[in-house]
Amino acid sequence: QARAPKGRCFCAGKGVNMVPPKLIEKVEIIPPSPSCKTQEIVVTLKNSTEQKCLNPESKFTQKYIMKAVEKRSLQKKYESI
Amino acid sequence: QARAPKGRCFCAGKGVNMVPPKLIEKVEIIPPSPSCKTQEIVVTLKNSTEQKCLNPESKFTQKYIMKAVEKRSLQKKYESI
Repeated sequence: QARAPKGRCFCAGKGVNMVPPKLIEKVEIIPPSPSCKTQEIVVTLKNSTEQKCLNPESKFTQKYIMKAVEKRSLQKKYESI
Repeated sequence: QARAPKGRCFCAGKGVNMVPPKLIEKVEIIPPSPSCKTQEIVVTLKNSTEQKCLNPESKFTQKYIMKAVEKRSLQKKYESI
């Protein structure tokens, strides 16, 4: 589940479905490249050098990432629903 | 527009509205923290050590980031519209 080499990809398998949001230091989106055909999402955790692969298809990942680009006005709309 | 210190934030201002997608090495989402109250989106470019701040509210950033977490089945749906 952790970041591990597979070919030249960071991630072996789909990665974890969630991590505690408060522990997130940063989330990296790495597009497909000649050395790794899969897009990868890697999360770095606070208080550790640990990096984990996040499953791009998990609800947690999708919500976390969508939230990062929602406009504030839209966020308010969603919150009030 | 480039990454520059502002307090302890990476970004000064909103950042660029777009970068050529083919030049993207990775995109980092950095949540708000005690040292920087703003969420930041930082893009690293290929063939350079350059990092730029991306405007989280630009259409380019929103599309690029949403695409990263769209399920393949959904992507096909959008493509066919």
